[in-house]
Amino acid sequence: MPTPPARIEGQIAFIETLDALKQVSRRNLVMDGSRCENSAEHSWHTALMAVVLAEYAPGPLDLPRAVTMLLLHDVVEIDAGDTFCYDEAANGDKAERERAAAARIFGLLPPEQGDALRALWEEFEAGQSPEARFANSLDRFQVLFQNRNTQGGTWRLHDIARPQVERRMAPIRQGLPALWPVVQSILDDACASGILKP
Amino acid sequence: MPTPPARIEGQIAFIETLDALKQVSRRNLVMDGSRCENSAEHSWHTALMAVVLAEYAPGPLDLPRAVTMLLLHDVVEIDAGDTFCYDEAANGDKAERERAAAARIFGLLPPEQGDALRALWEEFEAGQSPEARFANSLDRFQVLFQNRNTQGGTWRLHDIARPQVERRMAPIRQGLPALWPVVQSILDDACASGILKP
Repeated sequence: MPTPPARIEGQIAFIETLDALKQVSRRNLVMDGSRCENSAEHSWHTALMAVVLAEYAPGPLDLPRAVTMLLLHDVVEIDAGDTFCYDEAANGDKAERERAAAARIFGLLPPEQGDALRALWEEFEAGQSPEARFANSLDRFQVLFQNRNTQGGTWRLHDIARPQVERRMAPIRQGLPALWPVVQSILDDACASGILKP
Repeated sequence: MPTPPARIEGQIAFIETLDALKQVSRRNLVMDGSRCENSAEHSWHTALMAVVLAEYAPGPLDLPRAVTMLLLHDVVEIDAGDTFCYDEAANGDKAERERAAAARIFGLLPPEQGDALRALWEEFEAGQSPEARFANSLDRFQVLFQNRNTQGGTWRLHDIARPQVERRMAPIRQGLPALWPVVQSILDDACASGILKP
């Protein structure tokens, strides 16, 4: 049976559209400090972190579901851009911009496939399922390493203080509680060395 | 029970080491032609392609295994660098350089975890299992889109002709035979429009 052309064409359009996520710049730096990280390589990093850290999930976890969620979690930024987590004004209409992006981008796929992947993105955003909690925790956790390896990175650049970072990291308490002491230890060290305001 | 410190420290060392893959430059361009693609964002792209194109696998496929393989398939380049597929001299000692890299990088992890992930990388390299064939096919397939979207990209830059591309794409015949007509159609168009030598 030949491949139905419309189906594969939609899938290829989606795959080609994904490429643009490599041009979406995040605020944090890559660990050698040479440039900002982009959302595609960030997504790769968090997905592989999920594989390595799955054992710390606090209960039963569908790891492949969490990995797929992390691979997808930022694709709406292709249209909506990255919204800096400490920018309260830009976060005001973030949800609306990202919903429109999801409709267009997942809409490139065959309907049942696009709906399934969009539902996974919505599950990540809602942050309620075990997989979404785990994935959200890793999304936050990754940035800690980058800031501590770049003399404070976005913390210093945007004059962020520890209580703001702790609010941002709060999902880790539920999603990856076993790693909360690691978070605290990194923040203790960052305050002691002066790269994060107390 | 507190997390055994040595275990999590090894895992964090691995996660921090991964960041360097974002600085490994491949030969092909990202699709807007503005710069070379790096191996981290390439790995993300192929992993998400696996999710989207799994239905075309020619037989039973452990998709999570294939996705993890694609997330990992280039991490040895952190030490060994990217070897251009059409550079025959550099490909001479590629296997040896990459084996040493695998020993160091996967060796950062707790032994049983590092061994399991290293085995998955070796399985990808061997290209024999259904998952390895599928993953290798996607690794090749992705570059097609990038070259056709960048006026020939590496094909033009390195004066590559269609028979060389067909040899490079050959794993797709076994790993993703349903997509071989798509490969042929892209190469037909590329030759017709002059971005690939016949």
